[in-house]
Amino acid sequence: MSEHGMLEHGGRVRAAAQRYGIPESDWLDLSTGINPNGWPVPVVPQAIWQRLPQDDDELNAAAQSYYGTSRLLAVAGSQAAIQALPRLRAPARVAVVAPSYAEHASAWLRHGHQVMPMSAAEILDSGDSVHVAVIVNPNNPSGRLFHRDELVSLHQRLTARGGWLIVDEAFMDATPEHSLASVSPQPGLIVLRSIGKFFGLAGARVGFVLAEQKLLHALAVLLGPWPIAAPSRHVTMLALRDRVWQQQNRQALAQAAQRLSALLGQHGFSPAGGCALFQWVCRADAGSVHRQLAQRGILTRLFEQPHSVRFGLPRDDAQWLRLATALNEVRR
Amino acid sequence: MSEHGMLEHGGRVRAAAQRYGIPESDWLDLSTGINPNGWPVPVVPQAIWQRLPQDDDELNAAAQSYYGTSRLLAVAGSQAAIQALPRLRAPARVAVVAPSYAEHASAWLRHGHQVMPMSAAEILDSGDSVHVAVIVNPNNPSGRLFHRDELVSLHQRLTARGGWLIVDEAFMDATPEHSLASVSPQPGLIVLRSIGKFFGLAGARVGFVLAEQKLLHALAVLLGPWPIAAPSRHVTMLALRDRVWQQQNRQALAQAAQRLSALLGQHGFSPAGGCALFQWVCRADAGSVHRQLAQRGILTRLFEQPHSVRFGLPRDDAQWLRLATALNEVRR
Repeated sequence: MSEHGMLEHGGRVRAAAQRYGIPESDWLDLSTGINPNGWPVPVVPQAIWQRLPQDDDELNAAAQSYYGTSRLLAVAGSQAAIQALPRLRAPARVAVVAPSYAEHASAWLRHGHQVMPMSAAEILDSGDSVHVAVIVNPNNPSGRLFHRDELVSLHQRLTARGGWLIVDEAFMDATPEHSLASVSPQPGLIVLRSIGKFFGLAGARVGFVLAEQKLLHALAVLLGPWPIAAPSRHVTMLALRDRVWQQQNRQALAQAAQRLSALLGQHGFSPAGGCALFQWVCRADAGSVHRQLAQRGILTRLFEQPHSVRFGLPRDDAQWLRLATALNEVRR
Repeated sequence: MSEHGMLEHGGRVRAAAQRYGIPESDWLDLSTGINPNGWPVPVVPQAIWQRLPQDDDELNAAAQSYYGTSRLLAVAGSQAAIQALPRLRAPARVAVVAPSYAEHASAWLRHGHQVMPMSAAEILDSGDSVHVAVIVNPNNPSGRLFHRDELVSLHQRLTARGGWLIVDEAFMDATPEHSLASVSPQPGLIVLRSIGKFFGLAGARVGFVLAEQKLLHALAVLLGPWPIAAPSRHVTMLALRDRVWQQQNRQALAQAAQRLSALLGQHGFSPAGGCALFQWVCRADAGSVHRQLAQRGILTRLFEQPHSVRFGLPRDDAQWLRLATALNEVRR
């Protein structure tokens, strides 16, 4: 495996390297949902490193065109928005789909809100009982896809009472037809997007908030000037404009997702769900599967509730072969 | 002038271009205090764009060595720390040196603190009457340098009562012998550093907070994971290690500062102060001087209180000649 692959999520790989006594450079890291063949970054001109980032550069126009909406704010990764949104409301009852990306619940709890973890079915029915509903779509790690009409209906009930629907679409780029971006802006609708996963640019720390202008303004004031590095703005602008690469990668990722699902199924690990960028395997012996793969230098992401393993996509033929070989050896 | 130079502070240059009817590409931008010959950035490997930023990369070690202190936190520009520090104290009486970088007072006011603007002499004597003192050293735009023993004495009086001394050393890299970095960490001492000015990497959005571990931990929790782009971490790490470039640039900037001070003096604009990266000219007709230079496509920074003009450094012989020619034409 290339050095490139080894670095993808260094912290976890480093810990695994120590735990399993396998050098960092020997790992196949499938623990992230990041596109292993990310958008190819060109050289960034020196002038862009030198100047302060410019809010009036071409990033906003590129993003408006890509997302198909006129109102958005670039932020330092959707994480920045996840942390800031709870500061824009008085203490509220907040439904968060569970299990899901843990930073959502954590951020609302930290700012004194009441957080109610809910299943997908429960949260779709929460519109009359909570102030804020937070949904990840497609969800992580389950891959569960919420349909637009379900979310539009939930949003209508929330917004009628001054509430918010927050939809984190970090993994949506491969299936834009399911995004709420095109119905944004609307009062009380907040859509989060990221260039980390589909574009494979997690290091750039760029995300977008799609919402009403009033909310975007409040968020921008809270986040302050120059939150995004100028080279990150430049690279994101170019990636969002590269429609040929996007089209090719939507197809390539859809094929890779089918291939991963089929491979797992062949070895008795049929996924309970998934999306273009990962597959989710629920099993009582998830810990054992995760450990046996790790003993072979393959890092997956282990979840405890429910017991499950998330598999990201291999990058190339050598990685596919290595995964297939290891799956064949795992004892169940 | 190169396109490179034109881009350095695009927002202000853009506004000036419209106001004075001079194309953006024709401006000589002296409105920033950024080193016009910044650290030469190499190509950043694709893998660094792809992975999430790693807290355990080599940036901290490089920064500890460069600043000569063991306790520091990398932040998304010192602006991120300026915005966050007021959230770590209950409402307090805060002395801020004035005039100075406006974001300090603004951030403390925004979070409900009582802000008391003070002259340099007043703030050095404020240790028994305020909870927090904020000093920019060397100050911007005055260039006034506070001496270490003055600041150590102020810090002792503040910290004896649980207070903080915050020293923003954004322009200190050319004169490290005046920095408080080497006496950090100490309770109640917070030193802010930046790689924007001396290294000419304002686009990277990287700064450092030097302080006690307890405060750094609280700040890190508040700022959340991955605030700095991975390419920015990588480039900063390399720049902080490049001792040859740093040594050459300290000398080159000291010479350029003398040259700028002398040039201004020759034309009847003797600076009232300055530092390695800018000179500060106080005059009742500052607005007229600023405007006449702008009519010649040279952008300086105009201040109203007191009436003054700040000049950044020209990049090369052509820019020096252009400035000299324009100064010769300015009517007083």
